[in-house]
Amino acid sequence: MPPNHRFTHKRSIKSGLPPGSLVHIGKSPDKAIQISVMVYNSDAVDEHQYHQAAQYRQLSRSNGVTWINIEGVHDVEAIRHIGECHTFHPLVLEDIVNTVQRPKIEDYGDYLFIVLRMLRPTDQGDFSSEQLSLILGPDYLFTFQEGIKGDVFDGVRGRIRSGKGKICGMGSDYLAYALIDAVVDSYFSVLENFGERIVDVEEQLALTPNHSSLQLIIGMKKEVIFLRKSVWPLREAISFLERGDSELLHDSTRLYFRDVYDHTVQVIDTVETYRDLLSGMLDLYLSSISNRTNEVMKFLTVIGTIFMPLTFLVGVYGMNFKHLPELEWYNGYFALWGLMIAISLLMVLYFKKRRWL
Amino acid sequence: MPPNHRFTHKRSIKSGLPPGSLVHIGKSPDKAIQISVMVYNSDAVDEHQYHQAAQYRQLSRSNGVTWINIEGVHDVEAIRHIGECHTFHPLVLEDIVNTVQRPKIEDYGDYLFIVLRMLRPTDQGDFSSEQLSLILGPDYLFTFQEGIKGDVFDGVRGRIRSGKGKICGMGSDYLAYALIDAVVDSYFSVLENFGERIVDVEEQLALTPNHSSLQLIIGMKKEVIFLRKSVWPLREAISFLERGDSELLHDSTRLYFRDVYDHTVQVIDTVETYRDLLSGMLDLYLSSISNRTNEVMKFLTVIGTIFMPLTFLVGVYGMNFKHLPELEWYNGYFALWGLMIAISLLMVLYFKKRRWL
Amino acid sequence: MPPNHRFTHKRSIKSGLPPGSLVHIGKSPDKAIQISVMVYNSDAVDEHQYHQAAQYRQLSRSNGVTWINIEGVHDVEAIRHIGECHTFHPLVLEDIVNTVQRPKIEDYGDYLFIVLRMLRPTDQGDFSSEQLSLILGPDYLFTFQEGIKGDVFDGVRGRIRSGKGKICGMGSDYLAYALIDAVVDSYFSVLENFGERIVDVEEQLALTPNHSSLQLIIGMKKEVIFLRKSVWPLREAISFLERGDSELLHDSTRLYFRDVYDHTVQVIDTVETYRDLLSGMLDLYLSSISNRTNEVMKFLTVIGTIFMPLTFLVGVYGMNFKHLPELEWYNGYFALWGLMIAISLLMVLYFKKRRWL
Amino acid sequence: MPPNHRFTHKRSIKSGLPPGSLVHIGKSPDKAIQISVMVYNSDAVDEHQYHQAAQYRQLSRSNGVTWINIEGVHDVEAIRHIGECHTFHPLVLEDIVNTVQRPKIEDYGDYLFIVLRMLRPTDQGDFSSEQLSLILGPDYLFTFQEGIKGDVFDGVRGRIRSGKGKICGMGSDYLAYALIDAVVDSYFSVLENFGERIVDVEEQLALTPNHSSLQLIIGMKKEVIFLRKSVWPLREAISFLERGDSELLHDSTRLYFRDVYDHTVQVIDTVETYRDLLSGMLDLYLSSISNRTNEVMKFLTVIGTIFMPLTFLVGVYGMNFKHLPELEWYNGYFALWGLMIAISLLMVLYFKKRRWL
Amino acid sequence: MPPNHRFTHKRSIKSGLPPGSLVHIGKSPDKAIQISVMVYNSDAVDEHQYHQAAQYRQLSRSNGVTWINIEGVHDVEAIRHIGECHTFHPLVLEDIVNTVQRPKIEDYGDYLFIVLRMLRPTDQGDFSSEQLSLILGPDYLFTFQEGIKGDVFDGVRGRIRSGKGKICGMGSDYLAYALIDAVVDSYFSVLENFGERIVDVEEQLALTPNHSSLQLIIGMKKEVIFLRKSVWPLREAISFLERGDSELLHDSTRLYFRDVYDHTVQVIDTVETYRDLLSGMLDLYLSSISNRTNEVMKFLTVIGTIFMPLTFLVGVYGMNFKHLPELEWYNGYFALWGLMIAISLLMVLYFKKRRWL
Repeated sequence: MPPNHRFTHKRSIKSGLPPGSLVHIGKSPDKAIQISVMVYNSDAVDEHQYHQAAQYRQLSRSNGVTWINIEGVHDVEAIRHIGECHTFHPLVLEDIVNTVQRPKIEDYGDYLFIVLRMLRPTDQGDFSSEQLSLILGPDYLFTFQEGIKGDVFDGVRGRIRSGKGKICGMGSDYLAYALIDAVVDSYFSVLENFGERIVDVEEQLALTPNHSSLQLIIGMKKEVIFLRKSVWPLREAISFLERGDSELLHDSTRLYFRDVYDHTVQVIDTVETYRDLLSGMLDLYLSSISNRTNEVMKFLTVIGTIFMPLTFLVGVYGMNFKHLPELEWYNGYFALWGLMIAISLLMVLYFKKRRWL
Repeated sequence: MPPNHRFTHKRSIKSGLPPGSLVHIGKSPDKAIQISVMVYNSDAVDEHQYHQAAQYRQLSRSNGVTWINIEGVHDVEAIRHIGECHTFHPLVLEDIVNTVQRPKIEDYGDYLFIVLRMLRPTDQGDFSSEQLSLILGPDYLFTFQEGIKGDVFDGVRGRIRSGKGKICGMGSDYLAYALIDAVVDSYFSVLENFGERIVDVEEQLALTPNHSSLQLIIGMKKEVIFLRKSVWPLREAISFLERGDSELLHDSTRLYFRDVYDHTVQVIDTVETYRDLLSGMLDLYLSSISNRTNEVMKFLTVIGTIFMPLTFLVGVYGMNFKHLPELEWYNGYFALWGLMIAISLLMVLYFKKRRWL
Repeated sequence: MPPNHRFTHKRSIKSGLPPGSLVHIGKSPDKAIQISVMVYNSDAVDEHQYHQAAQYRQLSRSNGVTWINIEGVHDVEAIRHIGECHTFHPLVLEDIVNTVQRPKIEDYGDYLFIVLRMLRPTDQGDFSSEQLSLILGPDYLFTFQEGIKGDVFDGVRGRIRSGKGKICGMGSDYLAYALIDAVVDSYFSVLENFGERIVDVEEQLALTPNHSSLQLIIGMKKEVIFLRKSVWPLREAISFLERGDSELLHDSTRLYFRDVYDHTVQVIDTVETYRDLLSGMLDLYLSSISNRTNEVMKFLTVIGTIFMPLTFLVGVYGMNFKHLPELEWYNGYFALWGLMIAISLLMVLYFKKRRWL
Repeated sequence: MPPNHRFTHKRSIKSGLPPGSLVHIGKSPDKAIQISVMVYNSDAVDEHQYHQAAQYRQLSRSNGVTWINIEGVHDVEAIRHIGECHTFHPLVLEDIVNTVQRPKIEDYGDYLFIVLRMLRPTDQGDFSSEQLSLILGPDYLFTFQEGIKGDVFDGVRGRIRSGKGKICGMGSDYLAYALIDAVVDSYFSVLENFGERIVDVEEQLALTPNHSSLQLIIGMKKEVIFLRKSVWPLREAISFLERGDSELLHDSTRLYFRDVYDHTVQVIDTVETYRDLLSGMLDLYLSSISNRTNEVMKFLTVIGTIFMPLTFLVGVYGMNFKHLPELEWYNGYFALWGLMIAISLLMVLYFKKRRWL
Repeated sequence: MPPNHRFTHKRSIKSGLPPGSLVHIGKSPDKAIQISVMVYNSDAVDEHQYHQAAQYRQLSRSNGVTWINIEGVHDVEAIRHIGECHTFHPLVLEDIVNTVQRPKIEDYGDYLFIVLRMLRPTDQGDFSSEQLSLILGPDYLFTFQEGIKGDVFDGVRGRIRSGKGKICGMGSDYLAYALIDAVVDSYFSVLENFGERIVDVEEQLALTPNHSSLQLIIGMKKEVIFLRKSVWPLREAISFLERGDSELLHDSTRLYFRDVYDHTVQVIDTVETYRDLLSGMLDLYLSSISNRTNEVMKFLTVIGTIFMPLTFLVGVYGMNFKHLPELEWYNGYFALWGLMIAISLLMVLYFKKRRWL
């Protein structure tokens, strides 16, 4: 039952460790850590790739926005190295490598620490989930990904590289917006995927409800529970970006975060709608199953009941009494058939009249 | 299962696009975009029609209120053109053409952006839904409709054209009120329609509950889920119009928005009442069905049980034992009939006494 | 299904009309409008009756409190006439004649507009509902009733006429309190009536649960839904009278409104208790029914099962095999009876032991 | 169904009476009103008993705390007399004699009026409820009890009489605290009693679930509904005592009220836990019952089904065809027995394999 | 049913006692009270053990943090002695020995009083719960444990003894943080343990659902009810530590409490998820059971129904009518077999077609 593991990460191995202990919790990708740095302003874009964390030094202040994207938080030493270069708070680093955080935002004064979850539909019909951590400073943005399946940021990278678009002239907070927007946008794919599966199961329910439909519905309910866990706290976090009083967020960007907030609420709305639909489908399933079984049993019991009196009658004339007058009648046998047919017809009529047949 | 599509719009095609990208999401009407401009004050009314967006220029400031009504937001280029004439924020335009917004209000300083949904009952008994976007400025009001089924504003147009009525002497905020009021008023038609269907299904339930009643109830529950999604956020939005601190809204108009707010709360109340009624009907349906089936089976089992001992008895006297004294009795056969009738009567009496029959 | 009409008033006929349009929605009494005016202070009481609205003029300011009670809001012209005499806001008049308002309070500066519902138990066991609208000014109070069944204000009238009592020395706000208190007090009759019906149905459930009990429970659940709609908003409205900052309410009267608030909360508490009780009764009903049916079927199946093996045995000795030794035994028949009685007893014992009988 | 009467007091007899009308609602004890006065400070304690209210005069201001305890609020005239001696507000007196108040606190400036409910377990396993009203002034405390079953204040009286303890040196607010604490403490007895009954029913459910278990569960659910009505509003009231801004409450006493608040929350927690446990038990009961019935029917149907084919077979060889070869075989009878035993065994095996037996 | 006792502690024995009465409520460990004192700063660590409370004296103010850990709150006299040495408020001591407190925090000005629950998984699969009380002063921290199963603080002790680590340089508030963090961390073990049991039961449900699965699910639901009682109030308490305005908490420590708060919310999230999963499992169980039973009964009824008409037919030809032509036919017997086989096949086909088999 693999999807369940999402709820039972071995979080307890951290018990007893001092705060700020970096312990990786979660799945590890097969590849090594990758650090890509993008420095851009409205005039130019500059890109670097580091394949070893040790090569990484603190960035010289540049005239523009620096985006440092790290894929692979399982490399705890590399994360510690990067964290120390920038004197990030140990609790921030601890949360980055512990990939079972719930979405949240924390204000550390000099920088904002944001955690959210990237969801992607899988081939099996459900979805995978990775943690994305952002550290937003005045002119830089760090993004930490688990690095298992790639990210949803190619559109943003393209816009930066093209050198056109609004993004190049704006600050790091707008970059954070663009990335968070991309993540929230990708939720819609997951939801549409989910919506299609709901329609499929609904059709299956209408045609041939069986035990596998039930398991599909229960499985989808479990996924909705997980989805809710991912999106509800997100709303609160993005609401802070829209309304909070951090100086790192410019007023012009807040309008955009309002837009993301709006999308998040739409996502939550849809998740709640799915939850209601699934409850309705569960009711429908249970009622269909019991309806069908009852129908079978009703029909069969009717059949059985018609034959009860008939069997009794033929039993009567199978008795061996010395004196049993009807047996002597020449047309007794045919008269009995007539009687039995009459009884059957009357019972069928009665059943029809009372709508039991 | 068409009504489901309402929950699964292909919202994801926008993933990865920069903010402010105008992508039409929703159904397209068959006709081209239509722009009607109405300029009025307490003295005169002036009307124009544009059939091509390119003809449209920014309006010269006039001494009165200008109402620009655009039908057909699928013409993305036209919307962009209009938006640029008035330097509306790109996010506003994006939301106008993406017709799966939830009701909301956004304050952009110079203007308010309001989104709501026009509902109309259809011939199939359910209702269709179109997005209506309003941009309310100091002396103008833009209304953007999907343009699929026409609008509910003929009453307002009539009042303006008649030149009498309060509306001609008031500002653009009063016009916005009049239109929003017309939209909320039209919800009552949908609700009454819905209420009549509930009464119909209730009657059907009382007479002949069957599987189709269940599907009607489940279908109506789905519609209620959609209705709630449309009206709950509306309450919050209209509450802003009543209490918010925008300078675009005059105190004299706020009284009227309080009235609309009141109507919205009435709509929500009714929707919630319908939800409760539908839950009650589901209980009633399930209980009726199981009641009826149980009644059938009880009756039939009683019948069967009466014949069990009788069939056993006639079997006894159908045995071929050499020495079976009763068979020799001259009135054995009639005595047996007497016994069997007595047994039957006793069982019927017993069943009656224990109220099983 | 008449009680349902309460949820489906033809509210939609107002769609498209300008705000302040006076359209009567609701039932009309058989009689004409009646206007009674009571002017009183601690020294004297003066009463007038108008049977035609046109006779009515604005009241001269008197040294005391003026209570104008209007019965019959279906006479739209009369209401308009009265409203114009006092320059009440058109929205107020609109709400007075549209008798499907939810309880509310609106502050218009010079006067407060209060809407609530008068409930009264009917002979059929349920209750009727009328809208009562109050306009509370500095030294006057208007009350508008539907006028279908009379009101609950005779006690208040008596106290004023008697010239004693606290009421004569107090202002119009105290009069409003006295009337609202009378209305809320009358809710207790409805609730007690309802409580007695709950006890009746509970007893019926304990003795002979049947389908009609279910319909009673479902019907009462519907009434509770309506009751909740009437009392929940009332709480908010009366809370404004207790704590709001209108100058029309004196501090000495607020204590009394706190008392009414308290009663309203008691009413809500009781309604919620009834809701919970009805849910419990529904559970009890469903469980009783299924219990009884299962009991029947269990008993009958046991009977049937005892006769199955016996019928098989007598069938064995009804066979016509040439060589069937037992048939030749002289006491075979009696031995078989012994065997069959033994089998029956053993099965009954087994059933008893496993507590199936 | 006596416990139900708790929900249907004849509250309506007060309809139409002016506010402040003293009408006793509730049960009356058999004895006459009793007034006990205790005046104490850290030096001395003085006690009086009045058996007739008329003897009672307003107390001379003493150097200490005066506790006037009145048992028997059914004596409306006595309550009026006492109220007039101290010029308490008529609404306060009205609430004292109307013993169906919900717990509340009201600030009348000079004094606080507090209502709560004393609960006590009865011999029948459930609990009785009496109203306790307190009027807390700067140096006095009135307590009004229904006087049916005695109170829970003997501990407090003992502490005062002993002259030691903290209570003698503190003000009237501390006395109020001590009494309220005693009342809340007594809730724990009711809850423990209730908890033991839950354990009993749970054990009964595990052994022999029957219809009486259901009635016990439903009955206890009703009691929980009543308990919740008594304790939820209490929380709000005591929260006022802890945090409200009345000058009658000293800061040193507030710490103690925080403790009572804490206990109240514990009581609420426990009540909510019981509610959840009872819901779980209802599920368990329904599932046990249906499980047992299904088990019976499954077993019996299996038995019946084994005999169906056998009875058919013996019927075959009971036929009277002229030419029926098997009947002529010498060992036909025994061969048939073999066949029938084989069929039975195969069916039993099949049932066992599919886990139906 | 031992886990139930958790809900029914004999709390009532305290009724009537004055506030601050020290009465131990809860289980007692077998050993005597143990007092361990740790005094540390960034330079040195000093440890003492007292085995008799009387040896304990108030600590001389030292240059560092003093952690006094007391195991065994059943020794009421010892607790009183310690409390008096430090003039703690009697209510604090009362709550320490009454080990059925809900998690809470109370600000006494000079010190904070914090109560929480230590949970630990037991060998039986569920978990045990002990109360941990903390008194946090400016340079000291008292911790009171029940002392039944040991604590989870060895990690913290190790960090202090090692003399390195951040903890030695920080104040008593950081020590409180470290201990609370250790407690909350230990919840994750309980949750993981619980999660594994959920997976086990889920697998059992998928393979062979039976009555014991139901009892497991109901039992786990009860544990979740208890877990919720332990963690929900904790959130509020820790939120105070993060945001409250006590001077005992330094800003640098608040960041860490934010981290604990975060973990607490994660714990609550997981508990709520388990609750939802258990509800889903209950649905699945009930549906599986009814599915299986229905399947059995359907199959068996089908079998029975096929044999009904056949038994009737063989009964027909077992009749003894004088004139029964078919009996005379030479191949009548074989023709009948043909007919019966045909009927059986047709019925099987019909059942298959309607998907009843």
